[in-house]
Amino acid sequence: MAVHSAQIRVATAGHGDVTDITRGVQEVVDTAEAKTGLVNVFVAHSTAAVTLIENEPGGVRDIKAVMDRLVPPGDDYEHNRTAADTNAHAHMQAAIIGPSETVPLKDGQLQVGTWQQFVLIDFDDRPRERRVMVAVLS
Amino acid sequence: MAVHSAQIRVATAGHGDVTDITRGVQEVVDTAEAKTGLVNVFVAHSTAAVTLIENEPGGVRDIKAVMDRLVPPGDDYEHNRTAADTNAHAHMQAAIIGPSETVPLKDGQLQVGTWQQFVLIDFDDRPRERRVMVAVLS
Amino acid sequence: MAVHSAQIRVATAGHGDVTDITRGVQEVVDTAEAKTGLVNVFVAHSTAAVTLIENEPGGVRDIKAVMDRLVPPGDDYEHNRTAADTNAHAHMQAAIIGPSETVPLKDGQLQVGTWQQFVLIDFDDRPRERRVMVAVLS
Repeated sequence: MAVHSAQIRVATAGHGDVTDITRGVQEVVDTAEAKTGLVNVFVAHSTAAVTLIENEPGGVRDIKAVMDRLVPPGDDYEHNRTAADTNAHAHMQAAIIGPSETVPLKDGQLQVGTWQQFVLIDFDDRPRERRVMVAVLS
Repeated sequence: MAVHSAQIRVATAGHGDVTDITRGVQEVVDTAEAKTGLVNVFVAHSTAAVTLIENEPGGVRDIKAVMDRLVPPGDDYEHNRTAADTNAHAHMQAAIIGPSETVPLKDGQLQVGTWQQFVLIDFDDRPRERRVMVAVLS
Repeated sequence: MAVHSAQIRVATAGHGDVTDITRGVQEVVDTAEAKTGLVNVFVAHSTAAVTLIENEPGGVRDIKAVMDRLVPPGDDYEHNRTAADTNAHAHMQAAIIGPSETVPLKDGQLQVGTWQQFVLIDFDDRPRERRVMVAVLS
């Protein structure tokens, strides 16, 4: 068993922007010529998250609306004072979804469901350039 | 190090139904005769989640109630219109809990706590047949 | 590829207490002399969580406040009756954040962002002694 890793660079609009990175993850698997093992996808930023969802426009708008209802951008947060920042809500929305997912690989294919796409959700309050790391153990 | 994988099939009632899959996960470990490594448990469906909780009837009812309070099934969601569906809340409840957990394995035993059981939580709004994937790296 | 594992012991104050365990995780990597692979960090308790956040005092107070607003300690929960307990909210707060994270390792360094620290968040309603497990695959 060996590890093969690569980065996917994504330009996002922030504000809950959802980017489908499934093809990029599969390309790392293909380049590695990996057949069986695990694939870990991780975003190295504290205001973005990686998860698997059905990447459908309605559902994407719903998840942004729900996260903004649960942790409203306009609420009063200490982080915005102590760190002179404006994106405290993004840190917490990202922590609730989480920065990584690890899924099984078989016959060179991600063993995800038909309605599961790997997505990067950028909760920051401005456009960002993001690095998503893909590590393939096979 | 090698990977051994298997599927657990679970029939659920939906609506936040919690199924303890700890024994099934341990059986995959036993079959693999794995001693030390990592175990990844992943559900390949976007309206179900895998996590570790204390599988106690009161707590199970609580988590269903809390998730339905945070993301109410009866709210208005775009997914239910754009995808002609009725389970938008289930997609978001599942994304908040997440589809996978990865835990350490030692001496052939899952290194989970006394009050931690592997569970599948099915948030969909109808009974479903689910595949849970178990990958053991050891 | 081999697995190297170790435990970090943490004394917490409970009530959402956040402990930065990044140095402890890196020490396990260093001891293993691991260069490239994956690092899994897992807490074997159902009322605590492991995640990556910017460990900044304001943000730490925010996350505690947000989790207590989403799942209030003072609400009525069945777990507190059926298990004669007082920490039902802690179980659910922990399930929402989750008990583990898995991140890539390269050149002997955790591939986390500048503003990402590994933290243990203890949601229990009293001080606790916790075991955090670190497994390094390299």
